[in-house]
Amino acid sequence: MSASPYKQLEQEFKRLHAFRGALSLLRWDAAVMMPRGSADIRGEQLAALETEYHALLTSPRITRLLDRAQANAQGLIDWQVANLHEMRRQRDHAIATPVSLISQLARATSRAEVQWLEARQQGRFDLFAPHLEEVVSLVRDKAALLGQALNLGPYDALIDEFSPGITTTDIETVFKALSRRLPSLIREVISLQDSRSSKLVSGKFPPGKQRALAVEIMKAIGFPFDRGRLDESEHPFTEGVPGDIRVTTRFDSADLFSGLLGALHETGHAMYDLGLPPEWRDQPVGRDRGMALEESQSLLLEMLVCRSRPFVTYLCPLLVKHFGVSGPEWDVENVYAHVTRVRRSLIRVDADELTYPLHILLRYDLEKKLLNGELAVRDLPDAWNSGMEQRLGIRPGSDAEGCLQDIHWAVGSFGYFPSYALGAVIAVQLYDSLRSEVTGLDEQIARGEFSGLFAWLRKHVHGMGAKLSVHELLKAATGKSLSAAPFVRYLEGKYLEGAASIAAA
Amino acid sequence: MSASPYKQLEQEFKRLHAFRGALSLLRWDAAVMMPRGSADIRGEQLAALETEYHALLTSPRITRLLDRAQANAQGLIDWQVANLHEMRRQRDHAIATPVSLISQLARATSRAEVQWLEARQQGRFDLFAPHLEEVVSLVRDKAALLGQALNLGPYDALIDEFSPGITTTDIETVFKALSRRLPSLIREVISLQDSRSSKLVSGKFPPGKQRALAVEIMKAIGFPFDRGRLDESEHPFTEGVPGDIRVTTRFDSADLFSGLLGALHETGHAMYDLGLPPEWRDQPVGRDRGMALEESQSLLLEMLVCRSRPFVTYLCPLLVKHFGVSGPEWDVENVYAHVTRVRRSLIRVDADELTYPLHILLRYDLEKKLLNGELAVRDLPDAWNSGMEQRLGIRPGSDAEGCLQDIHWAVGSFGYFPSYALGAVIAVQLYDSLRSEVTGLDEQIARGEFSGLFAWLRKHVHGMGAKLSVHELLKAATGKSLSAAPFVRYLEGKYLEGAASIAAA
Repeated sequence: MSASPYKQLEQEFKRLHAFRGALSLLRWDAAVMMPRGSADIRGEQLAALETEYHALLTSPRITRLLDRAQANAQGLIDWQVANLHEMRRQRDHAIATPVSLISQLARATSRAEVQWLEARQQGRFDLFAPHLEEVVSLVRDKAALLGQALNLGPYDALIDEFSPGITTTDIETVFKALSRRLPSLIREVISLQDSRSSKLVSGKFPPGKQRALAVEIMKAIGFPFDRGRLDESEHPFTEGVPGDIRVTTRFDSADLFSGLLGALHETGHAMYDLGLPPEWRDQPVGRDRGMALEESQSLLLEMLVCRSRPFVTYLCPLLVKHFGVSGPEWDVENVYAHVTRVRRSLIRVDADELTYPLHILLRYDLEKKLLNGELAVRDLPDAWNSGMEQRLGIRPGSDAEGCLQDIHWAVGSFGYFPSYALGAVIAVQLYDSLRSEVTGLDEQIARGEFSGLFAWLRKHVHGMGAKLSVHELLKAATGKSLSAAPFVRYLEGKYLEGAASIAAA
Repeated sequence: MSASPYKQLEQEFKRLHAFRGALSLLRWDAAVMMPRGSADIRGEQLAALETEYHALLTSPRITRLLDRAQANAQGLIDWQVANLHEMRRQRDHAIATPVSLISQLARATSRAEVQWLEARQQGRFDLFAPHLEEVVSLVRDKAALLGQALNLGPYDALIDEFSPGITTTDIETVFKALSRRLPSLIREVISLQDSRSSKLVSGKFPPGKQRALAVEIMKAIGFPFDRGRLDESEHPFTEGVPGDIRVTTRFDSADLFSGLLGALHETGHAMYDLGLPPEWRDQPVGRDRGMALEESQSLLLEMLVCRSRPFVTYLCPLLVKHFGVSGPEWDVENVYAHVTRVRRSLIRVDADELTYPLHILLRYDLEKKLLNGELAVRDLPDAWNSGMEQRLGIRPGSDAEGCLQDIHWAVGSFGYFPSYALGAVIAVQLYDSLRSEVTGLDEQIARGEFSGLFAWLRKHVHGMGAKLSVHELLKAATGKSLSAAPFVRYLEGKYLEGAASIAAA
């Protein structure tokens, strides 16, 4: 007797999982190890594997098996049903965009990426504009086709690729609440922080020692160095698959914290991936539940756990051990003040927890208008600059610090930005529940113990894989629906701590 | 109008080339970068890509296109005709072995490799024997099927996979000549070298400095570090594709020369690959002409160029510069004596130029007997040990230093060993012609100039890709057929230099 349609599908998706892992390694190598002149060769390898992956996923065989498995789903357990659902979802996404459009997009974005780099270096938006126009027009076509196939609005269809189940309505609700409170909160916090004196933490911190510190902390957190690596790259990222996870950061010898917190942010992603259900490791239901939840896990570790007093309590003796620092600027309160400093700044990736969402709100607004035609590409720089002025009260001196700073649009990633801000909101909702259920959490963290933290996350988040939607997972883990209110409360509590206005409230 | 069948084939093989490059990178990473615990994950990725590669290469579409292109070959230029021939060759090899046998072999060899490692560590052949029996039996089946399909004897069919066009008759002729002269030559050389006093070159050589020296010499040779890397691994190897070549070596801080000469051996492979015809880079005819020719290029650089007086003349000042060495043991004559020292030793990969072929002759003899049933696997250790005693006059103290030392049989690579010795023979034939045509070669090398050397090799060897058979290429480059005589003359001239017997001859 031959295997059931469902079991045959599992075999097919196991193969696709291996392809994904190979593709991920090719990308990791390109960013970390590859000689600079070899980008053309790598491009051909990635294109060949991606084309083949797409062909396998959209083959008539998979469609046939999906239909037959669906018709015989009565004997399947809940994980298998969810797996079948995710298989169908991946296939539906892949088949909705015709191969011709995919290759047009691949060519247009690879040209646009090169021109974007050039334009950013020279601060000349005009070099990039025609390429962005082409990408926007192709993404518009893709969004329309995806939307038709998935029965979603065009922009919702794009979001669904990155964060399944999240809708424009979810985003609007959350973003409205953020834009209502954040601007005034930022003013209050900056004025409060300005009123307090804190000492500069500076020095020379050799990258080798920074790396040793990061490794020590990652080990304490539970990152498995026999099945993962920490390397350096221009921007921090996480690639690989559970079983071979590759995390990167970049070390700045004048700044001790940026490399460390970059590594810890990525370790948050890695721990999510490592906590995915091992028995479903090579199946669609065993994957992460999209970018918003991914980002919630990196931000939870970086912002909520590591930029906290208990973590700084654990960290300070390690700074003494690794760098031999001494003096009052290295005491817990001063270091804590340093890692929670709020500033109005132009660059998203350098922004703090409080101003960061405003960077996202701007991009969300602009990318929707670019796609629906309300905003012409040539008007983007002006729209960007006045948006920054309006939201953050600062204006970029050049497009390099403005609308040319991010790679996302050049490579066609529209609908991705919202997940960063949603991730921050979700992180706080999860952490509220976690704190109420894990007793003695702060004391554990202050001792460098993270097992209580990750036991809860594995049970309620990581171990669920893609079995539930984000909304279902959040409800199951916290009893509540997605809401910006806990995030705002968290920011007020953390950043207005000790202020008269709060004390009076 | 759609593309011609031939042009469509070029597209298909371009895709296969990209797959090969991806597979090569996955193997490089596994040996150089991968965390130790991730071997299972990598195994699945390699298997998935190899299966897909095999499926693409043996698809009905390729077969159909090959037939149609063959029928319309009149308009093709010679390179295209040769390309079509190589496409057919690759497809015929791939299709001759049924998928079921390929996967049986994959499973058997992956088990055997694990057991071989274990057996070697414990010096216990009995742990490995049943697995080797299984592999031998499957390889026997494969050889029979390949032989039928290619109209070759079973062992010739295996050789054809590694070194197309080389036959058992070629090997027998060369190996007979070697076994006639080498044993007595080794005796003469060792007694001559023993009669001369030479000073020990020893010291501590930090790996970082060894690396800097290797990089400086590789740059002088022309290795492009913007399109290639040098890393460290347990055994030296070369992976990647032209455009992204990855060379490895291992540095022993007590031995300055092993890491350097390992890197230079691999640089010989890399320079061959880099010199392949760029316009055929992603086509079968643009590949190297098999393992015997590959090995000829690594040995030509390591043995003929780098273990020579002119090269040592170039090297010695670099040793002073990088390590600050001084004293009479570091003069050219003493260093030259050191890198041409001959010793009877048990381990093939550590053997010198003179004894090395005897290690190969033994393996060739034994693997043929294992395959045709003359030798039972259980009798291999005895046959090995008496073979070593007979050929080299030394007997392994354990199987770890004997028949368990090489990985080849465990992973099913029967028919591979002869290419090592053939490579040495071909290298000398090529170098004889090269020396007669490049004037002032020794002076160039002594100055660290390698452009004359590689211009000749590119024209006569590298740039030919797989257009000619090994025999045709050798004839075109040297005017002569494959023969062991120049190799024997070269060894006599180099290693008996200044001896009375030669002076008298």
